[in-house]
Amino acid sequence: MEAVSKGVLRGPHRSQLWTKRPRKYHGLGEGGISLGLAEIDFDAPDLVEKAVIDAVINGEYHYVDVKGLPEFLQAVVNRCEKYNHMNIEVENVLPTVGAMNGIWLTSRAVLKPEDEVIIVSPIYGPIFGHMTSAGARVIVCPARDDGYHLDLDDIEKRISKQTKMIVICNPNNPTGAVYTKGELEGLADVARRKKIYVFSDELYDTLTYDGRRHVSIASFSGMEDLTITVNGFSKTYGMSGLRIGYAVANKKIIDRMRKLNGPIVIQPGTIEQKAAAVALNECDEWMRCFRSHCEKMRNILCDALDRLENVSCPRPEGTFFAFPDLSKVFKNDREAASLLEGEYNIRTSSGSGYGKGGEGHLRLVFAATQEIIQEAAIRISRAITKFADN
Amino acid sequence: MEAVSKGVLRGPHRSQLWTKRPRKYHGLGEGGISLGLAEIDFDAPDLVEKAVIDAVINGEYHYVDVKGLPEFLQAVVNRCEKYNHMNIEVENVLPTVGAMNGIWLTSRAVLKPEDEVIIVSPIYGPIFGHMTSAGARVIVCPARDDGYHLDLDDIEKRISKQTKMIVICNPNNPTGAVYTKGELEGLADVARRKKIYVFSDELYDTLTYDGRRHVSIASFSGMEDLTITVNGFSKTYGMSGLRIGYAVANKKIIDRMRKLNGPIVIQPGTIEQKAAAVALNECDEWMRCFRSHCEKMRNILCDALDRLENVSCPRPEGTFFAFPDLSKVFKNDREAASLLEGEYNIRTSSGSGYGKGGEGHLRLVFAATQEIIQEAAIRISRAITKFADN
Repeated sequence: MEAVSKGVLRGPHRSQLWTKRPRKYHGLGEGGISLGLAEIDFDAPDLVEKAVIDAVINGEYHYVDVKGLPEFLQAVVNRCEKYNHMNIEVENVLPTVGAMNGIWLTSRAVLKPEDEVIIVSPIYGPIFGHMTSAGARVIVCPARDDGYHLDLDDIEKRISKQTKMIVICNPNNPTGAVYTKGELEGLADVARRKKIYVFSDELYDTLTYDGRRHVSIASFSGMEDLTITVNGFSKTYGMSGLRIGYAVANKKIIDRMRKLNGPIVIQPGTIEQKAAAVALNECDEWMRCFRSHCEKMRNILCDALDRLENVSCPRPEGTFFAFPDLSKVFKNDREAASLLEGEYNIRTSSGSGYGKGGEGHLRLVFAATQEIIQEAAIRISRAITKFADN
Repeated sequence: MEAVSKGVLRGPHRSQLWTKRPRKYHGLGEGGISLGLAEIDFDAPDLVEKAVIDAVINGEYHYVDVKGLPEFLQAVVNRCEKYNHMNIEVENVLPTVGAMNGIWLTSRAVLKPEDEVIIVSPIYGPIFGHMTSAGARVIVCPARDDGYHLDLDDIEKRISKQTKMIVICNPNNPTGAVYTKGELEGLADVARRKKIYVFSDELYDTLTYDGRRHVSIASFSGMEDLTITVNGFSKTYGMSGLRIGYAVANKKIIDRMRKLNGPIVIQPGTIEQKAAAVALNECDEWMRCFRSHCEKMRNILCDALDRLENVSCPRPEGTFFAFPDLSKVFKNDREAASLLEGEYNIRTSSGSGYGKGGEGHLRLVFAATQEIIQEAAIRISRAITKFADN
């Protein structure tokens, strides 16, 4: 347990964070804390680091088959079968240059101008731009007020003859909602009846709390061909600079995505594919340890937020994001983020970047050491107490 | 010298090639030789391998600034100034996921539908598709018959009011032509007068022979703002599975390319940027040794081709490609490639994939060990002798 949990227990001290996570901490002063960028403050699993080093030593950093490194493709198939209960083959998998690449390719492979896309919001911000730049019309469907779950009636009401795809992020970035089997069955029912694709961003599917289990909508009968699932390693495995992810969909869509991506990037890196195969095959123990650490950090941060008047924050059911509503304290979320960084040296993301329903919220990344999360909780509590009094 | 030249002198034996270069050797039987895919048979410089390992050990595999890793950007600036005699700043550089990414981004950042693009052919095949899929009309301008150099009169004749860009590959893939300062000055003169962009793929700019010096068209006065130069590391540094390259252009075009690429891949890998910085900063001695080896291999292969009747092959002035015309021996280049692979277990690329002027030719990659190139020369000579007699 000691060995596998190194990444979690060995919390890097502040000065290391500066050097090693230049983008997350960029421009923050001495003593600054970044809960902004979705990046964990820990190293990747030892076995992932070892996989990269071994690949270099063995000279395995050359082109591989354009369809992907066989051991990576097989690792994805095994993982999707065992963890996500999907029924897929190697031909259903496309290695991508990070999950972002998979989202972009989906928008280009599936959508045509004039198509409508229903996006359940709040959601990872760039998704809106991907869909509109593909020429589609975005129909925003806000999540329910009570805990950010799916509003199935509202989704169905917004479906038209032009609706081509419904977009969800499950577990949800930024709200932390983990959709239940029941509501996903409801969504699948709608998709099957109306013959609409579902795009499911499942980047945080290993991080669910309070005994919840992640459910992939692609695991339901009849949804294999209608779902495009995207996943990656940057976030939950602490390897954001190793650009690798994957998309799972029916073979026709995967073929189309591959043909689109080849002329753009040829293929994702070979050592990235090797490292990701090891992450999927050999790092379950590391992930259990990391999830348990994140659950503890969620409790520390959310306990502090719960003690604050005028702040509402449904406890995140998964991911490493808390998404408190601070609209009773600050004029708007951009002002909130700016005051917190300017006066308390703590960086956050403003909620309006995540679409309708995010206004007045901040997204807080709690994948850091206990020392940092405790200090963050103190600073945020002080700030909110001060500004609530003004 | 021993240390830096390891990659060249330590020729991996056949069975290693199978494992380590799965795409180049895919499907070739026992004893197969691949002169097909543009990939060298040697490992990357030791210092590049060490840079990747160090990055992993130091935990430097996280997001960096979206504009690029500062040490990589600076290495590109220094290299472009010293080696290419360009006058640029960090803001003129975009790190890309390999050179392919830079070509694609150029087509999207510069071209609009109805624009015309003059492409000097034969050239790296995918370039045609990039330009047409961006909506542009491709005007092919074949290189001169005598050694594949630029036909400036012909280029100028093909310019219309719609012409937006002229595309060259220098040194040329697949012909090995290294454009002289004189002809590039002529091309620059045309571009300046007509206010047309020049796209210059300079992937092989370190590999020039017989004392030739590579000249970048962007180094001429007035061409800084009119040239988009693309370069990479996959080919000449033996790191095809480390997806990294760069584009150099005016700041407006670089900004546009960055904004296009962010939503597609976020950024190239961090360890790739670190490795590429080391390749540029510290591997000149390795490159000298590799170039000298390639020149020797060129001589072995071309001496053998020169001895064959019915075969014409201007000696390549750079790159690691020979591009013999075999039209007097085989019905066409696809048949030539197929017969060579089927009957002599030697893989090549058929020349018609490189556009007008490539028909009847084969592209042969000679960046391999002397043992392999000698054996390749024997098999090709036997095959040509046999088929010429038929």
